[in-house]
Amino acid sequence: MKKILNSPDTFIKDMLTGLYKAHSDVYTYVNDDIHSLVKKNITPGKVGLATGGGSGHLPLFLGYVGDGMLDGCSIGEVFQSSSAEQMHEVTKAIDTGAGVLYIYGNYGGDRMNFDMAAEMADFEDDIKVNTVIGRDDVSSNHKENRRGVAGIFFVYKVAGAAAAEMLSLEEVTRLAQKAADNVATMGVALSPCTIPRVGHPSFELAEDEMEIGMGIHGEAGIRRGKLDTADRIVDEMLEPVLADMDLQEGDEVAVLMNGLGATPLEEQYVSYNRVHEVLSEKGIKIFKVYTGEYATSMEMAGMSISLFKLDAELKKYLCRPANTPFFTQLQL
Amino acid sequence: MKKILNSPDTFIKDMLTGLYKAHSDVYTYVNDDIHSLVKKNITPGKVGLATGGGSGHLPLFLGYVGDGMLDGCSIGEVFQSSSAEQMHEVTKAIDTGAGVLYIYGNYGGDRMNFDMAAEMADFEDDIKVNTVIGRDDVSSNHKENRRGVAGIFFVYKVAGAAAAEMLSLEEVTRLAQKAADNVATMGVALSPCTIPRVGHPSFELAEDEMEIGMGIHGEAGIRRGKLDTADRIVDEMLEPVLADMDLQEGDEVAVLMNGLGATPLEEQYVSYNRVHEVLSEKGIKIFKVYTGEYATSMEMAGMSISLFKLDAELKKYLCRPANTPFFTQLQL
Repeated sequence: MKKILNSPDTFIKDMLTGLYKAHSDVYTYVNDDIHSLVKKNITPGKVGLATGGGSGHLPLFLGYVGDGMLDGCSIGEVFQSSSAEQMHEVTKAIDTGAGVLYIYGNYGGDRMNFDMAAEMADFEDDIKVNTVIGRDDVSSNHKENRRGVAGIFFVYKVAGAAAAEMLSLEEVTRLAQKAADNVATMGVALSPCTIPRVGHPSFELAEDEMEIGMGIHGEAGIRRGKLDTADRIVDEMLEPVLADMDLQEGDEVAVLMNGLGATPLEEQYVSYNRVHEVLSEKGIKIFKVYTGEYATSMEMAGMSISLFKLDAELKKYLCRPANTPFFTQLQL
Repeated sequence: MKKILNSPDTFIKDMLTGLYKAHSDVYTYVNDDIHSLVKKNITPGKVGLATGGGSGHLPLFLGYVGDGMLDGCSIGEVFQSSSAEQMHEVTKAIDTGAGVLYIYGNYGGDRMNFDMAAEMADFEDDIKVNTVIGRDDVSSNHKENRRGVAGIFFVYKVAGAAAAEMLSLEEVTRLAQKAADNVATMGVALSPCTIPRVGHPSFELAEDEMEIGMGIHGEAGIRRGKLDTADRIVDEMLEPVLADMDLQEGDEVAVLMNGLGATPLEEQYVSYNRVHEVLSEKGIKIFKVYTGEYATSMEMAGMSISLFKLDAELKKYLCRPANTPFFTQLQL
């Protein structure tokens, strides 16, 4: 295991301690628990937006807490859900009377704990909590079972902008759900990552192999095979995304090219070149392209491609400015 | 070699073709040559700022072309200088009468070609060109021989802000040189990268080894040894940086934590935690922390730490907003 850390047992504690020092202008925590991160200067009367999940995916999830996006995040150990209590504490801290929306990925532990936290907030604190779940990974055939991956960025962005415009909990929830319903993602992995406390890679891929559709925790994908050319990898990734979205000529999308951790930006642009070709051939308009690392799996090599189908309403909220320690956008 | 590409021979062409498609609102090129990148909408009367260098370091170098930063960049093949002609074409395109400042790292090929381009611009086009060279890597003992690495980000930022305020070429040059004189960087490598056309890693490091002070092209560092704890790695990296800068209690710095390509943000924050401790113990104030990937070596694992010593003047320009496809900052 080749990582820059002090001890596998203090990895997340050391990481979070450094993070609060680096971004003390934006981040603080509640209940004396560094796993319950909240934004400083919560806007009174605004719908509170919370997310959460296991560590190891920076900038997911906490990186999107900031102006124009989220208000709080509960943080688990590497690839493990945070506790319902941690989520509950975040919920209390970010509610200013307008209610709270949970936005998180479709994983069993997260669902169980967020549901418990929502019940606690309702029964103990009379806080109304709604939930929108990210299920953008089209590598699973059954829509209800789909994992949430990088496409949740668009849900955060739209919901954050809607909340910043002081819309009601119902409206913010509707827009977040609409965003979630219009994003689809497919990934490819070239190499595994290592959970520090485990100490060895979570799976193996031969030197000439890739796995299309692998999840960000190393969940099985849809095909393992020889590493192919960038153009053919992109074609294979885009096919199920396009099939899922039923995009028509003249439709407009935003594209998210996401590195899983170890894949250089250079390779993302080689890949984007083909994405642009395929979409242009189909007459699909590209409104905005995001490249970089948005949802990683520590040092995993690979990438994901997300398409976000836009209409005038979603575009309006996508374009609104945002400013967090990990994502800054001026008004588009 | 495990990379997402079509062919080693078309790697940079495919990458740049994708990049121009993704960021067509900001980037274009001149002289029918995709290696001569310039910003759209150059501000008339503003000092033009150009950089350049080999590919494989994204977001270096072209990523800092945009509002409040640079105006043009000439782009070479992986780890190879661009040509003097390409630099000359960029120079002509970004000059609007106020002259041009070259800012680039201290590498032989780049120096030779930028010097030739400056002569061509002077003799053929009567364009006044000044030069500031990044030499921030303190792993070399002889200051004149030092390589330019991630710290050049601060030189770009200060020079870009000074030019955006419509200062003269002499003033922009003075401020860029002042920034360059006040930044120091040290790196550590944990694993090599592979140049596509070469097809095998440029060096080898055993599974339990690291190399302190290695350059971003794999240049030899100052010590190879067993991988140590994050805290001890940071201590060893900071020692020569602090010795070089002669920082006193009460001095103020900006910190740049830079991933070389494959090192997760989580490990950067574990490391930053120790940077903060060491600087705080010495009474050095931390004005602003930047984390992420600013100067990479494709899929190399490792990181660098840069300190940028601030005074009121440098801070003013550091704080100014900037907006490029790879770096956006609101007014601090």
